[in-house]
Amino acid sequence: MEPGPLLSGGASVAAVLPAGGSGERLGGATPKQFCAVLGRPLISYTVRALERINWISDIVVVVSLENIETMKSIIEKYCHKRITIVEGGLTRHRSIFNGLKIFLESKLSSCPLQKPEVVIIHDAVRPFVEEDILLKVVLAAKEHGAAGAVRPLVSTVVASSADGSLDHSLERARYRASEMPQAFIFDIIYEAYCQCSDYDLDYGTECLHLALKYCKTNAKLIEGPPDLWKVTYKRDLYAAESVIKDKLSQQVCVTTDMKEDSVQLGFLLHETLKNQVNQVKSISVFLCKNDHSLQSILGQCYNFICINDKRSHFQEIQELVDILEHASISVLHPVVLISVHFNVSENMSFSSGMEELAGIKEFAREVKKKNILVYGLLIRYEKKFWCMEAIWSR
Amino acid sequence: MEPGPLLSGGASVAAVLPAGGSGERLGGATPKQFCAVLGRPLISYTVRALERINWISDIVVVVSLENIETMKSIIEKYCHKRITIVEGGLTRHRSIFNGLKIFLESKLSSCPLQKPEVVIIHDAVRPFVEEDILLKVVLAAKEHGAAGAVRPLVSTVVASSADGSLDHSLERARYRASEMPQAFIFDIIYEAYCQCSDYDLDYGTECLHLALKYCKTNAKLIEGPPDLWKVTYKRDLYAAESVIKDKLSQQVCVTTDMKEDSVQLGFLLHETLKNQVNQVKSISVFLCKNDHSLQSILGQCYNFICINDKRSHFQEIQELVDILEHASISVLHPVVLISVHFNVSENMSFSSGMEELAGIKEFAREVKKKNILVYGLLIRYEKKFWCMEAIWSR
Repeated sequence: MEPGPLLSGGASVAAVLPAGGSGERLGGATPKQFCAVLGRPLISYTVRALERINWISDIVVVVSLENIETMKSIIEKYCHKRITIVEGGLTRHRSIFNGLKIFLESKLSSCPLQKPEVVIIHDAVRPFVEEDILLKVVLAAKEHGAAGAVRPLVSTVVASSADGSLDHSLERARYRASEMPQAFIFDIIYEAYCQCSDYDLDYGTECLHLALKYCKTNAKLIEGPPDLWKVTYKRDLYAAESVIKDKLSQQVCVTTDMKEDSVQLGFLLHETLKNQVNQVKSISVFLCKNDHSLQSILGQCYNFICINDKRSHFQEIQELVDILEHASISVLHPVVLISVHFNVSENMSFSSGMEELAGIKEFAREVKKKNILVYGLLIRYEKKFWCMEAIWSR
Repeated sequence: MEPGPLLSGGASVAAVLPAGGSGERLGGATPKQFCAVLGRPLISYTVRALERINWISDIVVVVSLENIETMKSIIEKYCHKRITIVEGGLTRHRSIFNGLKIFLESKLSSCPLQKPEVVIIHDAVRPFVEEDILLKVVLAAKEHGAAGAVRPLVSTVVASSADGSLDHSLERARYRASEMPQAFIFDIIYEAYCQCSDYDLDYGTECLHLALKYCKTNAKLIEGPPDLWKVTYKRDLYAAESVIKDKLSQQVCVTTDMKEDSVQLGFLLHETLKNQVNQVKSISVFLCKNDHSLQSILGQCYNFICINDKRSHFQEIQELVDILEHASISVLHPVVLISVHFNVSENMSFSSGMEELAGIKEFAREVKKKNILVYGLLIRYEKKFWCMEAIWSR
């Protein structure tokens, strides 16, 4: 989704990520946002989900004093950008307030942040936030002053009487679970926090409620996807792991050169793949590592199929590997790159084909050290008939 | 927990397990209750959780017509007992009603069920229900007419106005998520269903609500453990898998013979283990496969440490293996049995000790085919000093 035209009205957007929680419900000593999922702290996934969105100018992460060094080392290790660490308060609301204040105080500091028009508030323990829902809450906040993601209730909600008996149950359809992300006109939520009573700062949990109570702003509620759920219990860490694995395997980028046959094959492959995996992107380009927009598109995917019918396509693979290396995504998980080279049979001898595969094999051995796995596939075809099913079915 | 004295007042208890759901939210074709977790359908775990409780006389599983054969084959494969399959209705409430009716209709049928005093209603997709919470809801239902497990709300609940804006948010502490299991005086919930409007039968979700609305019964709300959560999304299946793995590895049963040294060692081991694993049971007995109460205690665990100081303890291991085989729990997951045999050194030569280990090795090879993994540990000790830390730390 390209938010350019929608946000080009000059709405600057920043994000505050409260991450001061203690993780009591997980039953472990490590706060849940710092627990490792597939070897990487949960918060790093959440930060990554925000920082890959280029219309979010700054990300303020609010952590408790004792976790500031941990957070610094995570930022360094996973090469996170545009992050400011702020020390949290004793409660969630006080931490968020600290995160907001930094935008006004920073004129005096060494790294001044621009006060944004709209501020996103998200949870460090909801790593699967997509650009789509972020954009929706930001645009709704711009229009209504405040907005937040909601989900249908999974269980019926009941009210108990003083003696612990059922008083009444709520009609499930009328209510929603309030989730994150939420977004606010900065001045509104900042004003709400300034007005906020100590009781609300200490015992409240809901930012939308503060905007309503102190600024008379009725937030727009936006139905969000199920993956917004909050990692709360230990079992949620396993669930998060499964979602990450699924996501990695369910994204494929098909690149082709500009030749007619390649583009056609790329199109057919795209059509076949889209029935089998969640997300297929197709790009027909000359790969060039100095193309920054290309870099940002490619640098978010872990599976590539590169189709080429040039005599020598080796350079293109190298360009792509350079781009992927530069995006440093393979630090986290292996990147798979399948290079498909097809030739009309009469133009190429069998032995020169095998030579080429040997060259790829050598190259693959080299880049494997960088956690990029290259596979070569040479197709010699006689007639223009593609049977795609066979390629993908494993 | 031994409910004997509490339920011995003659309260008969049965359970109804609605399992007619279609699993839309999982995004797959298989209804979630029939999805495999570690190779076994989810519903089989739930059925097992209920059938191992000997004070539940009958378990009525309500499935849609097209899944009756599937359910029959699950019962056969996993040797479930005391199960009656009933065909479901179009909605959850209609299915539960069908499940209740069978207790009255069955006088005419070939397998008459006794109408229970209290009926438990549980979800097929909540496999981690423990005896503790079941007993609590049953006892509360006996006293109050109805009772149900509740959990704190994870998210704030909000009410939206007609235009999709925030109308108000609920004060989180006053409300609870209504979970399962629930229990009812049979006549109360049956009456509620008989009185129930078609609208409630078609659109309602909450049994406690029906008892209140039609029978003026205010259910007692009981705080339940976090593992009661409902498998709703695909990620929950992974979470369920992780919980099952955790549970299997976190239960140890220490058995010893009646000799003083064995009992003492068993006690020390118990004390050490209970700091490291969730659930440690210790039993000092002569193992005997004809002892049925022993069978039901042992037949719920997957890890055994058997301590013995008799010259020939081989027979005891064989008895235990027989008991475990009979309980057929190793059909599902491997059972681990560590046989610890210790002798005062002067009574036994090194070579006869090695002979004994060789015998265990031979036996272990044989029972491995039955998914029971036997390990032998021979300890020769000179002085009465046990250092338990060393045994368990891996």
